Amino acid sequence: MFEPPVQRLIDELSRLPGVGQKSAQRLAFHLLNVEEADARRLADSITEMRSTVRLCNRCFNATADAECTICVDTRRDTSSICVVERAQDIPVIERTQLFKGRYHVLGGAMSPIAGIGPEQLRMSELEARVGAEGVTEVIAATNPTVEGDTTAMYIAQLLKPLGVKVTKLASGLPVGGDLDYADEVTLGRALAGRQEL
Amino acid sequence: MFEPPVQRLIDELSRLPGVGQKSAQRLAFHLLNVEEADARRLADSITEMRSTVRLCNRCFNATADAECTICVDTRRDTSSICVVERAQDIPVIERTQLFKGRYHVLGGAMSPIAGIGPEQLRMSELEARVGAEGVTEVIAATNPTVEGDTTAMYIAQLLKPLGVKVTKLASGLPVGGDLDYADEVTLGRALAGRQEL
Repeated sequence: MFEPPVQRLIDELSRLPGVGQKSAQRLAFHLLNVEEADARRLADSITEMRSTVRLCNRCFNATADAECTICVDTRRDTSSICVVERAQDIPVIERTQLFKGRYHVLGGAMSPIAGIGPEQLRMSELEARVGAEGVTEVIAATNPTVEGDTTAMYIAQLLKPLGVKVTKLASGLPVGGDLDYADEVTLGRALAGRQEL
Repeated sequence: MFEPPVQRLIDELSRLPGVGQKSAQRLAFHLLNVEEADARRLADSITEMRSTVRLCNRCFNATADAECTICVDTRRDTSSICVVERAQDIPVIERTQLFKGRYHVLGGAMSPIAGIGPEQLRMSELEARVGAEGVTEVIAATNPTVEGDTTAMYIAQLLKPLGVKVTKLASGLPVGGDLDYADEVTLGRALAGRQEL
């Protein structure tokens, strides 16, 4: 019903998370009606990001180099690792200025229903880092959800036999919520009151 | 806090309608984590659409040529024009198979609060078409909202002095709703029971 290039754009947009058929139509026609330079800047910023940004070899954060700015920062404490589900959680924790160690991005949380187990996450990479980097504490900063808590428990079971202390963020975060919506004060308290697993 | 190319993409995404800062972050990291080919296909489909699709010279529908497929279709009745707010409303009306005339895309609806008057819409182009194309009926298929109804009233005041019949879609559409969410049966009835203004 739409011109083929418009329909193709609608199809691509509707593959994005949280974008349905109707939203995709609106976005496509928005992009047809804005200044051509604006549409082109969006397209270029996607291409530019994919050609310049990659995942850190160590922690899987976004980076322009082999390792991210946090991993190569020699002032960071290499004896503690803060494990997060997604790279966008890192700036939220950084803003509390209470964590001086390095990070590890799992790429999600365990969910038997969605078929996501330890093999679908970067769990073996985490285990390898704990052995190789002289880590003494791992903070499981997963979302305060069933999946996030399950993931934290799994990390504790996996790493405690290696003689490492495993903690999780204190409750105080609203249950069922999402880590990257937390304000800095709440998250700072949760970090200060972390509990051993 | 994010790598500059990631931040630039977040900025561009958050300029889209209905996409806030958080959604833009999620979309950007989604595009960083998917296969590079998938991200590139989205970027390319934006660029391709903008370089191949333009607005119809006559009705402002999306088209690959000077005029859209509906305007150049000689089987269409040139004596009636269906006026819609947005190009994406056209396929919804086409699916009823009850309208055989041509369209006119206004580009929005009148809204004093948002500073949108007749000059911000394609109202003078509509007026010119009525004179030039031997039009006898104009159907105002604007959204059943305050803005859409105001726009329909304005069209009636503008075009009735030219001796043309101006109608609007029958009520039956849920008030406060949005034209492109209507099902075909409801919209078909609204079209059949259109009322003169």
